[in-house]
Amino acid sequence: MAICIMATGGTFDKEYNELDGTLSFKETHIKDMLSLGRSKADIIVRTIMMKDSLEMQDFDRELILSHCNNAKEKHIIITHGTDRMSETAHFLGKRNAGKDQTIVLTGAMIPYAFGSSDGLFNLGCAIGFVQTLPFGVYVAMNGRYFHWNNVRKNITLGAFEELTQTAQENNEESF
Amino acid sequence: MAICIMATGGTFDKEYNELDGTLSFKETHIKDMLSLGRSKADIIVRTIMMKDSLEMQDFDRELILSHCNNAKEKHIIITHGTDRMSETAHFLGKRNAGKDQTIVLTGAMIPYAFGSSDGLFNLGCAIGFVQTLPFGVYVAMNGRYFHWNNVRKNITLGAFEELTQTAQENNEESF
Amino acid sequence: MAICIMATGGTFDKEYNELDGTLSFKETHIKDMLSLGRSKADIIVRTIMMKDSLEMQDFDRELILSHCNNAKEKHIIITHGTDRMSETAHFLGKRNAGKDQTIVLTGAMIPYAFGSSDGLFNLGCAIGFVQTLPFGVYVAMNGRYFHWNNVRKNITLGAFEELTQTAQENNEESF
Amino acid sequence: MAICIMATGGTFDKEYNELDGTLSFKETHIKDMLSLGRSKADIIVRTIMMKDSLEMQDFDRELILSHCNNAKEKHIIITHGTDRMSETAHFLGKRNAGKDQTIVLTGAMIPYAFGSSDGLFNLGCAIGFVQTLPFGVYVAMNGRYFHWNNVRKNITLGAFEELTQTAQENNEESF
Repeated sequence: MAICIMATGGTFDKEYNELDGTLSFKETHIKDMLSLGRSKADIIVRTIMMKDSLEMQDFDRELILSHCNNAKEKHIIITHGTDRMSETAHFLGKRNAGKDQTIVLTGAMIPYAFGSSDGLFNLGCAIGFVQTLPFGVYVAMNGRYFHWNNVRKNITLGAFEELTQTAQENNEESF
Repeated sequence: MAICIMATGGTFDKEYNELDGTLSFKETHIKDMLSLGRSKADIIVRTIMMKDSLEMQDFDRELILSHCNNAKEKHIIITHGTDRMSETAHFLGKRNAGKDQTIVLTGAMIPYAFGSSDGLFNLGCAIGFVQTLPFGVYVAMNGRYFHWNNVRKNITLGAFEELTQTAQENNEESF
Repeated sequence: MAICIMATGGTFDKEYNELDGTLSFKETHIKDMLSLGRSKADIIVRTIMMKDSLEMQDFDRELILSHCNNAKEKHIIITHGTDRMSETAHFLGKRNAGKDQTIVLTGAMIPYAFGSSDGLFNLGCAIGFVQTLPFGVYVAMNGRYFHWNNVRKNITLGAFEELTQTAQENNEESF
Repeated sequence: MAICIMATGGTFDKEYNELDGTLSFKETHIKDMLSLGRSKADIIVRTIMMKDSLEMQDFDRELILSHCNNAKEKHIIITHGTDRMSETAHFLGKRNAGKDQTIVLTGAMIPYAFGSSDGLFNLGCAIGFVQTLPFGVYVAMNGRYFHWNNVRKNITLGAFEELTQTAQENNEESF
């Protein structure tokens, strides 16, 4: 069961630059994480971009969509900044990504490089979900999965949750 | 979706005793791991035993089976030593555990307490699989899942794999 | 041999705020680090301030000086941001701090909370140097010690070094 | 100031073998540790042996002594198992090692490879002490230094301490 992991950046892959004290990107840590997890799943890793999701724009999401559409794999994980993860999931879901693929977005609250990160757990969850959920677009965070049209980040709690019933009915404005 | 995690010990939960240089058990690290992973899934943790799986006997497996049968949760993760994980999965599967529950066994090659462990990744995978796989008994290791009657630990590689076709036909002798 | 560790902040004690993605201070990690190092030395820890050294001004240095002058301990470690560590050492040395105390400034390039930090090593070095160097003001970084009037941070390399001979002669302008 | 670090094994350098669940040695981690600590001190690392100190015999100590005597460096750190560290320090001190060298033994209670080790702190302390203490043989543990003829490991506490006055008078029997 071939899985493609597409890295787009986010806190997941941020690193501390010790020369200037800033957080920035070098390369994705996904291969190191799979190696640490002793993964033997059939996985290829593609770096699409290395961006903070707050800086993502629609042409970035178009690029991600295009990579999904062109991927021959039926199981796709997208690592993504948490701040706009729901937005990208919504963008992909609206455009029928996931009609014949299982697409799971995940990320991290703490950079993997900082030692005590949630990233390895989240990557594990995503690898579990992506192999077993039906076709569609999902967010996998906090040990749970959410459908693209029913998820938002609660920025006060730093955790993902379903939209409220009302919000769901008007979900385009709500995440 | 309520999940019960049953801790039985294994490398997953081993610790280094700095006074005598041995590896032993104190308490399970599962709650710490869920906390590190920012899990918000509906999970309860029960410690069934704290054993190296090489020391597990059939009455230990009976106890695990009994806990599964008595659990009201439909989604059960069992953390377990890797050396006899396939054996316990087989024991449970043969006795019809998993007829109306999804039971996923997982563990680790490196103790969680040692920092660079595969345990957090494996726990994540198990949490993904247990919520989405149909009823049955499975092993989740190496980013993959295996049916109870088609898995063994390759002790040379330190990884789990399907039985060979022939082995599968005679699978009671083969793990 | 009583040692006083005065925490002033710096990268050493920075933490990642997962809610807004910034680096900031909570409390010093020095006690945790001493505990991890199984320190049994006679040490007390005082938090003087929690500042990025780029934001330190002369009244901050006056405060540090005053704490040194009022300390009854003869062995003082000051944890400090690396960017202005040489400047503070110079400030203290010029004002005769260290005339009857051994004062050692140290810090870190990577926050202790990020797992792969140099902080624990640097704290160890400082604890070694502070117990054995003669009275005076020193910087302890990179496994070495430097006199207050002969040290600067090479910001390109991210490491501390002696002033050049010429620089040394004019050292007030050179760090 | 050239420093020679002689690795002899001990908990400091033990690793977990995930295939058989035992603790054993591969190579010393000292270079990795110096790199993590951003050390720029003039240090060379020599591996003399990789032994648990409980298995060290007098011919092992003769070998260590011979390496000290033949070293051209005046500053020597010996990484060593903690269980017999006092014994080796005594062996060296009795044979006049340290007459024109500063020799510091150090080690760890937790393997460096296990993440939450005291090893990095202890190595830092030893690097501080070895550059500043007068010629002689010392043990550097728990943030402190001890003279070779006045130290023992308290195995109940897992920490080093001076001999009692009485013990000191009869110190050959007391460590």
